[in-house]
Amino acid sequence: MSELRHRGGDGDGNDKAETAGESDHVDSEEEKVLEDKYVDIMAKNLPQGTDKTPEILDSALSGLSSRWRNWVIRGIFTWLMIGAFCLLIYGGPLALMITVLCVQVKCFEEIINIGYAVYRVHGLPWFRSLSWYFLLTSNYFFYGENLIDYFGVVINRTDYLHFLVTYHRFISFSLYCVGFVWFVLSLVKRYYMRQFSLFAWTHVALLIVVTQSYLIIQNIFEGLIWFIVPVSMIICNDVMAYVFGFFFGKTPLIKLSPKKTWEGFIGGGFSTVVFGLVIGMEKFNMYPFMIHSLALSIFSSVIGPFGGFFASGFKRAFKIKDFGDVIPGHGGIMDRFDCQFLMATFVNVYITSFIRTATPQKLLQQVYNLKPEQQLQLFYALKESLENRNILNMVP
Amino acid sequence: MSELRHRGGDGDGNDKAETAGESDHVDSEEEKVLEDKYVDIMAKNLPQGTDKTPEILDSALSGLSSRWRNWVIRGIFTWLMIGAFCLLIYGGPLALMITVLCVQVKCFEEIINIGYAVYRVHGLPWFRSLSWYFLLTSNYFFYGENLIDYFGVVINRTDYLHFLVTYHRFISFSLYCVGFVWFVLSLVKRYYMRQFSLFAWTHVALLIVVTQSYLIIQNIFEGLIWFIVPVSMIICNDVMAYVFGFFFGKTPLIKLSPKKTWEGFIGGGFSTVVFGLVIGMEKFNMYPFMIHSLALSIFSSVIGPFGGFFASGFKRAFKIKDFGDVIPGHGGIMDRFDCQFLMATFVNVYITSFIRTATPQKLLQQVYNLKPEQQLQLFYALKESLENRNILNMVP
Repeated sequence: MSELRHRGGDGDGNDKAETAGESDHVDSEEEKVLEDKYVDIMAKNLPQGTDKTPEILDSALSGLSSRWRNWVIRGIFTWLMIGAFCLLIYGGPLALMITVLCVQVKCFEEIINIGYAVYRVHGLPWFRSLSWYFLLTSNYFFYGENLIDYFGVVINRTDYLHFLVTYHRFISFSLYCVGFVWFVLSLVKRYYMRQFSLFAWTHVALLIVVTQSYLIIQNIFEGLIWFIVPVSMIICNDVMAYVFGFFFGKTPLIKLSPKKTWEGFIGGGFSTVVFGLVIGMEKFNMYPFMIHSLALSIFSSVIGPFGGFFASGFKRAFKIKDFGDVIPGHGGIMDRFDCQFLMATFVNVYITSFIRTATPQKLLQQVYNLKPEQQLQLFYALKESLENRNILNMVP
Repeated sequence: MSELRHRGGDGDGNDKAETAGESDHVDSEEEKVLEDKYVDIMAKNLPQGTDKTPEILDSALSGLSSRWRNWVIRGIFTWLMIGAFCLLIYGGPLALMITVLCVQVKCFEEIINIGYAVYRVHGLPWFRSLSWYFLLTSNYFFYGENLIDYFGVVINRTDYLHFLVTYHRFISFSLYCVGFVWFVLSLVKRYYMRQFSLFAWTHVALLIVVTQSYLIIQNIFEGLIWFIVPVSMIICNDVMAYVFGFFFGKTPLIKLSPKKTWEGFIGGGFSTVVFGLVIGMEKFNMYPFMIHSLALSIFSSVIGPFGGFFASGFKRAFKIKDFGDVIPGHGGIMDRFDCQFLMATFVNVYITSFIRTATPQKLLQQVYNLKPEQQLQLFYALKESLENRNILNMVP
């Protein structure tokens, strides 16, 4: 790790040794000043959230202090969003999946727009098209995987779709390769560093947004309960943390978000756990779900908020206030969904670890995807093995 | 996309409209100068490859021109590496897997060291530990997935390991969450932007290095041929492109790497396809492998080099010559493996799409992972389905 490296290898006689691994170089004053200037200039061009409020609301609330006005506006739009959420649940799984897709696209747009502004890409060839192309191909891959997993047997009946199913990964990879080659060909000398930074930015955005919304869809397929309960828990935690913080907040929680307090964190967490227990008892009245509900509520109140802190830190790093301004009082879509993504991954992992520890049904469906003679081959192999192990004689 | 956004939302009266989506802001001269300065200062601190040569070689080759000296050194170390590769194959799958792990760790180190230097992290709390921690957890996850896939039945017999298998994803995710929380807690005001950039850098490095080496291991499990043939093809393509370029190179191929020529690209590609055909005929003498060999050789000679162009662009973006200097005449490990990673993914996708289109054996192994009563349940369900579809009456 700490091998010696020399700078400038073309025999320029400069052999001042530098430890690359454990560089002890200290920023000079000049460098610090330069960096601050650079960050400021970058930030100047960033899109900023605006706290814009519909005019009617604005005039109706003109008598209130800004603190209370924000409280009312935030409250109204929270209820509107909760209402929309209920409507969507009423709309069923398909409506939810389409919504997840829309939210995902919007979040991607918000993240990538910040990237565009940070690296000032105006004039850079193809950059917008490229990142949207990557969004498209990764969605094609992940949504396709889900559809094949759950509707494989149905899809296989159609000849044309059968081709798409069988070669799904190959098609997706080819599409990705096109994007990759396109990126390399679009590199322009002056912009190398920004282009690579944006390439990384795009891929991290895909990692956060696309892969996790793929997991959300998987959760929905496992049963709507695995979508509704965790989403409500995060909502509950967000709302109650805000309420407790608003009325009792005194002790600052984390430097990253000066507005967050220990009172809000603990009050929100406590409320969420109670909410989880109540949901577990009242709604489903089954013993095992109580445990699951408790586990989910603990995660959403202890680790969940770190998704929010992460987003706060990100916003501070690039000197923006919000990710966008589509929801008055709340900011962008990404501002509201920052914790939902982490939660979705947790739920998915939770299901695969504790719930769906290998179901015969799922395997059976995969067996039906085989050719008839292969199914037969598997059948006889299984029969023989069961006989050898004296399992076939058991009463089923 | 082109909704109007105002800058600075706190009622400062500045409502100069800006289109955030399609910003037409043009860099001022001042900004350009500032950015150039910034990039230069960053580059000053980067580790540089050195073309260091063992002393004995250096004195022996002192009579040659630098062009030929490089040719000889590169040639010697190419043969040494090919020899090492053959030795490893002789060592068998386990030796190869350990090598893949070592190469992966070294590549990660090279990439991440550039990140450290670019974002000058000296003094930044925890950064080294954090990125190595993420490397560790992601390897735990991916290597674990592979081991479970292929040795699941064996592992399940041990009680202690059984726990690790059943809750593998949960344990991995928990480990990741620890890293995530650790990162958020390590954020320090002055360094936000660099810390987030490095976080992204680490994750992209993991994406390139860890996930793709996971695919390499999978390929090895599918049969050594899926490792040896593609790796040799990339080697063949690299070597022949260099040789053709050295002797006949005239027409520049791509601005990114001024040393690469069309003659090298075409000569290397042609040699690789011939190599693929010869391997397909001579060694294995089976009709289907001819086709596979052809497909792999075409990919490695047409798309493969773009992995190298990508790496060249990356090096140029951050103004470094090589990723490291462990292999005289070649640079770092990453300089030699840039195309291997892309190739590994292609091979993996190729196998899942065209070779292993769902094998009864693999499914059967999954069935054996179920509890005995579940196996029985699956058996009877399959029996019924086969009877209903009149398949069971077929002669197997």
